Amino acid sequence: MRHAMDHTLSDEPLLARVESLAGLSPGLHDRDFLATWRASDDAIRFVLEAASLLREGAERGLSLQVFDGGVGVSLFRDKSTRTRYAFRAACSLLGLSTEEIDESATQLAHGETVRETAAMLGFATEVFGIRDDMFLGEGHSFMEQVAASLEESSQAGILLGRPAVLNLQSDLDHPTQALADAAHLVEVFGDLEALRGKRVAMTWAYSPSYAKPLSVPQGIIGLLPRLGMDVVLAHPEGYELEPEALDAAARVAKAGGGRFRQVGSMREAFDQADIVYPKSWAPRRLMQERARCRREGRPEALRDLETQALAENAKHVRWTCDADLMSRTRGGAALYMHCLPADVTGVSCPAGEVSAEVFERARLDTYREARWKPFVIAAILLGTRFAEPANVLRELVTRAKPRRLTGLAAHR
Amino acid sequence: MRHAMDHTLSDEPLLARVESLAGLSPGLHDRDFLATWRASDDAIRFVLEAASLLREGAERGLSLQVFDGGVGVSLFRDKSTRTRYAFRAACSLLGLSTEEIDESATQLAHGETVRETAAMLGFATEVFGIRDDMFLGEGHSFMEQVAASLEESSQAGILLGRPAVLNLQSDLDHPTQALADAAHLVEVFGDLEALRGKRVAMTWAYSPSYAKPLSVPQGIIGLLPRLGMDVVLAHPEGYELEPEALDAAARVAKAGGGRFRQVGSMREAFDQADIVYPKSWAPRRLMQERARCRREGRPEALRDLETQALAENAKHVRWTCDADLMSRTRGGAALYMHCLPADVTGVSCPAGEVSAEVFERARLDTYREARWKPFVIAAILLGTRFAEPANVLRELVTRAKPRRLTGLAAHR
Amino acid sequence: MRHAMDHTLSDEPLLARVESLAGLSPGLHDRDFLATWRASDDAIRFVLEAASLLREGAERGLSLQVFDGGVGVSLFRDKSTRTRYAFRAACSLLGLSTEEIDESATQLAHGETVRETAAMLGFATEVFGIRDDMFLGEGHSFMEQVAASLEESSQAGILLGRPAVLNLQSDLDHPTQALADAAHLVEVFGDLEALRGKRVAMTWAYSPSYAKPLSVPQGIIGLLPRLGMDVVLAHPEGYELEPEALDAAARVAKAGGGRFRQVGSMREAFDQADIVYPKSWAPRRLMQERARCRREGRPEALRDLETQALAENAKHVRWTCDADLMSRTRGGAALYMHCLPADVTGVSCPAGEVSAEVFERARLDTYREARWKPFVIAAILLGTRFAEPANVLRELVTRAKPRRLTGLAAHR
Repeated sequence: MRHAMDHTLSDEPLLARVESLAGLSPGLHDRDFLATWRASDDAIRFVLEAASLLREGAERGLSLQVFDGGVGVSLFRDKSTRTRYAFRAACSLLGLSTEEIDESATQLAHGETVRETAAMLGFATEVFGIRDDMFLGEGHSFMEQVAASLEESSQAGILLGRPAVLNLQSDLDHPTQALADAAHLVEVFGDLEALRGKRVAMTWAYSPSYAKPLSVPQGIIGLLPRLGMDVVLAHPEGYELEPEALDAAARVAKAGGGRFRQVGSMREAFDQADIVYPKSWAPRRLMQERARCRREGRPEALRDLETQALAENAKHVRWTCDADLMSRTRGGAALYMHCLPADVTGVSCPAGEVSAEVFERARLDTYREARWKPFVIAAILLGTRFAEPANVLRELVTRAKPRRLTGLAAHR
Repeated sequence: MRHAMDHTLSDEPLLARVESLAGLSPGLHDRDFLATWRASDDAIRFVLEAASLLREGAERGLSLQVFDGGVGVSLFRDKSTRTRYAFRAACSLLGLSTEEIDESATQLAHGETVRETAAMLGFATEVFGIRDDMFLGEGHSFMEQVAASLEESSQAGILLGRPAVLNLQSDLDHPTQALADAAHLVEVFGDLEALRGKRVAMTWAYSPSYAKPLSVPQGIIGLLPRLGMDVVLAHPEGYELEPEALDAAARVAKAGGGRFRQVGSMREAFDQADIVYPKSWAPRRLMQERARCRREGRPEALRDLETQALAENAKHVRWTCDADLMSRTRGGAALYMHCLPADVTGVSCPAGEVSAEVFERARLDTYREARWKPFVIAAILLGTRFAEPANVLRELVTRAKPRRLTGLAAHR
Repeated sequence: MRHAMDHTLSDEPLLARVESLAGLSPGLHDRDFLATWRASDDAIRFVLEAASLLREGAERGLSLQVFDGGVGVSLFRDKSTRTRYAFRAACSLLGLSTEEIDESATQLAHGETVRETAAMLGFATEVFGIRDDMFLGEGHSFMEQVAASLEESSQAGILLGRPAVLNLQSDLDHPTQALADAAHLVEVFGDLEALRGKRVAMTWAYSPSYAKPLSVPQGIIGLLPRLGMDVVLAHPEGYELEPEALDAAARVAKAGGGRFRQVGSMREAFDQADIVYPKSWAPRRLMQERARCRREGRPEALRDLETQALAENAKHVRWTCDADLMSRTRGGAALYMHCLPADVTGVSCPAGEVSAEVFERARLDTYREARWKPFVIAAILLGTRFAEPANVLRELVTRAKPRRLTGLAAHR
């Protein structure tokens, strides 16, 4: 099976690729991007193709600056390295400054203040990138509050435009991750069509850590069946995903000609899989309890929950991706995927999601998977900020401005 | 009375507006901007008109980039959301990177180190934006120390230029707030001339919070009488403002043909007012005591002072802006102003500066007031950094570079 | 002797200066910059000349933007004001955004995670600037780990390019400081040739502070003898420098026609010195012990070590640079150098590295020394990021784009 090892980008000229985008109606302009399953098919196709085009442009040394000043605001309510960098890199490549909101330094809080603060930070802002994934039932709703406030101020003519809210991971979806994953699959398998019928094992895996969000598996099941893929979800009892994501998975599978089903073990899920995505997440009931404790202001209860969650995880320590399991996949050579960082047995923890042997073989592939994120974010920005994003891409290609001074001009 | 609801920007072409600026002699070039009452009348007029021009340019999609690299340094010694963003947004729109100095990570302190650090951070810097408003008698003087150090290094030819020090709120003035407030008034009432004779009630209001700076009311009384307005200040006994600000108010009122006077109650101040600005600040004696405690290294005494200040505030809980008070203003429809965040009764606190009813009616107007700050800061930067800022504005307008790629070039 | 007081930049046209660079083969392209003694002679000459050219260009108002977007990542594992600013300013002048990695917010740690994180932050990155100087035997090796990871991902075609790792101070060298110091010497003495035979006293000096890195003196002895200078090192027993730096000093002295020797006292070192560099650093054995305590996870032992180190320092309180010692230098007028901040007796501490009288006389000179750092960093970036950096400099000069809008275009 083809891996990213020998990835070759299309040889067709960049301009022809722009024209193939020009026929799409992504419908993203002046909208937010909170969940892939709320976006149109053309939007998904636009993001994947524009991300690839932007990446190829960057590799060929094109300047991608479409803004001459302006701000991308980010707000991270959870730790982040990869996504934070990806957001900053995308903004920088497109010509935006970034401003990170530190809630402890700004008093951004609930109710009145969220509404007000969003307006105050929106005057010259193109996008708000938000990560809020720690509490079930809260992150997505926080993003909707921010969006509603921006909408109100924009309607009232107070802002220069209507900044987009971009979900950089919520309790529901992690769309920039899922789309980066999909872009990686397109690269590995050749094109979008080639994904049809491919089997994906999205499975829970053991980790000695607590309160990992549910949004990565939810993002995967909510997106890949839509691309015609055959997605199999497996997890121990008690690790159920959110109903909205399960419903979305069933719905998009039907609409996209893919499949979504659940099985009871990693073994079943891995059987003849083309792709495996073993990844830990927290027990749902404990995550619900956790959100309730916070709402009720009982932080001491969180510690108990942590102990319970770790104990619950420990019952399923055998849910780990090792060479034996991998041998059950198609040709014994499924593509291993992970959003990183992975908990690698014997490397980052005594027992984790994946054996060192399997991970090391796939490690560079996981980096290839991750590198799509800045370009996916940049593509979403183009789609949400410009009424005719294909025209903007065409101008980027035809103006052919180099991102780095070539030193050639001086020779003329 | 006209509110910002139906604000319409002037229809006269941008270029004609530039020419009206060209006759001014703001005298800001290579100077600091620490208090409005130390700036010339032309400087005030320049900032208000240039801010409006820059905003209109931004709304029409003009690139405002006047720098091709360079740094705006900010130093916040107090929490900030709105002003921090406004500074960053202004720098980004003009083409500067921003660098925020975190004192805990840099050891910026007193004496030798302030002098040295200012020089070290000045090599490629256009502006130092500083907030230092927590201790009476200290913030303004800190800014002057920074300015003196930059002056010395600049005179010695060590820096690329003489960076401007911009007061982003001190113990004395909050000039970017006061000028944003004035720009809002110009927009609401139509033009500068229309402000003459309008009555402004700048009053203390109750808040259950501690150590709010005195600089907002000081900024208002130090600026608006200069524009010919009739400014009435009211506060409970013990909440006196700094003598320098009171003197400035009297002086600029005389020079500008406005009025400045004090009355003993909100009721009197609100009577027939065109504009009301009810806002909490700390008791002056306690703020003085607080500065002394810090100088003497007695942090434990600060806690006692907090208790005293809150108890003092609590005596004046009836100083709150409600519908009944508003009905005493001109036509019962005065423009409500606030620098935000406001303490809204029943929303952000049990009892605060303003009733929910009054605030909600005025809320979008307060956002319109706030949106001026990035453009006021950008205008001050143009004035302080360029010998002929009108020429620079003219070039911005005539080059007509769009801030966002239009996608049109590719069609040619 | 000539001081920087009357520094005059060369009058030869910028373009002629570019041509003098064009003949060099710095060999920096796509390489890291971790220690001056690992770089070629042409690399050192390139950095010094390009830094001077960039500074002159900046002073003449040239835009130095060679990038149209892209990221400079910084990671500071120790406090920093000057170098942090210098890195940001250099990136801004060249057209890069900066992204500072906060380890507490990102979980960057050891082993797997360093490797992975470096790759994740490298996708659109031109340079990683790292300060890691707190633990002997660790900082340089951490930088090499980051570099190895970037090399792997770059070789695998995962990154847009191979980002350079730039040492912003390690346990071994502080190359941007040493090169800024050398650039200052070139400016003060006229040209590189004029440095031959000049005597430099690099000496320990007393400070009431703990765990100051050894990298500044190591950087000086590792670079200046290479320029033909006569470098004399003096320190109390127990304050030995790292063997790699001592070996480098001997080696570069031989290769460059300079001298490197050690003497037992400040008096001997200052005798007939043209330049003095009195500067505190920590006792080597205690720094080794400190690194061991951290490796072994015994933080409580660090406190004991601090007490010991301060007690050890206190035995040598007479190692201070005062007027009496200065009178022993050549003509009683040696150039005083310091990387700042200096511990000044009676100013920043009761007794320190230098008397207030000596420091105050030299203070502006130390600022002139420091201002070179942004330009040295920019020069290293040009060398490491471009295959033909002289061509890029030539283009900067010939395109002659102003860094600030002139306002002249509108008059045409």
